Amino acid sequence: MTRGRRRGSPATREQILDAARKVFDERGFRAASLRAVARTANVDPALVHYYFDSKVQLYTQSVGIGINPERVLAEVITPGRRGLGRRLMAFLTDLWESEVAQFVVESARENPALARQYAGVIVEQWRRAADILGFPHGIVREESLAQAIAVVAGVVTSKYLLELEPATSLTREQAIRVYGDLLQGVIDAAAAAEDPEAKK
Amino acid sequence: MTRGRRRGSPATREQILDAARKVFDERGFRAASLRAVARTANVDPALVHYYFDSKVQLYTQSVGIGINPERVLAEVITPGRRGLGRRLMAFLTDLWESEVAQFVVESARENPALARQYAGVIVEQWRRAADILGFPHGIVREESLAQAIAVVAGVVTSKYLLELEPATSLTREQAIRVYGDLLQGVIDAAAAAEDPEAKK
Repeated sequence: MTRGRRRGSPATREQILDAARKVFDERGFRAASLRAVARTANVDPALVHYYFDSKVQLYTQSVGIGINPERVLAEVITPGRRGLGRRLMAFLTDLWESEVAQFVVESARENPALARQYAGVIVEQWRRAADILGFPHGIVREESLAQAIAVVAGVVTSKYLLELEPATSLTREQAIRVYGDLLQGVIDAAAAAEDPEAKK
Repeated sequence: MTRGRRRGSPATREQILDAARKVFDERGFRAASLRAVARTANVDPALVHYYFDSKVQLYTQSVGIGINPERVLAEVITPGRRGLGRRLMAFLTDLWESEVAQFVVESARENPALARQYAGVIVEQWRRAADILGFPHGIVREESLAQAIAVVAGVVTSKYLLELEPATSLTREQAIRVYGDLLQGVIDAAAAAEDPEAKK
């Protein structure tokens, strides 16, 4: 590591994202400033603005890294359609019960635009997963995507944001099975509609 | 109707609720005041406070009347399990696309406590529906209730609150079919788990 404020380089953006995750984690969305992120990343504040339009965008991008799409793909999606519902729900449960999620919940409550951007990241990941699973594009895919997103958004809303009963009383294992199987139903129905052979 | 400010009577509470719905509808949650509700109901403001602890409570109660649980029961639930998913989703779609829902969405965004209270009303209605449909109490019922609530909360969140694609691109008919069938799956699985004869 060189000392002093670094100028733009291929690694600078990643450096800023790492710093942002740290600052958001320590201070929460509201208290975190782009200036503090720049200081932590040891870069000029103008560089943060150069790479990221707004605090919301920086936040979403750094949380996106918190999710680590490559790990999700490798561990959750790539093993295939069988058992995918429960694997996804186990991942979602761990994510939403992690410390990272605490400020996602808080800040999404305060800032609907952020909730929407964050949801956009998840929708993008679903589209990528659908590609990997080989679901062809078309109306069936769009409809089952709408169903899957409703299930995920519904679990997050009812269990983690509104903390409604009986969702909050489910144990981790129950939640993974109950919601995972609901999600698996969506996945299997989509596969069956696209390819009758897949329904077995 | 007698003239002048009325005192507490069996009908006063209903009168206040009617007025509240009207005032909330005209002004929105934020601009509406308990004073304006009292004026519209033609009662002393102290009576509004006597019956309702807060604006949020008055709002939730008056929206509860907006939903009209008796009509939902008669038209949606009582005809039975078959086709219930689509009937419920048709009802939900009409509700969330109505003028009444516009301020529910707005105010729920501003006020998470209200969103939670509102969701509580819906959960209570589901429990009542489960009684009418004859689902016995127990773990299966709690788990399927959690699934059904996740679906409803997810449709509302993804389609109406966050306005995510592809949810917002679905036509009314598509939404009722796509989400209604997801909900019907939950209902049928619950019935099958409770009574293997129901699975046919």
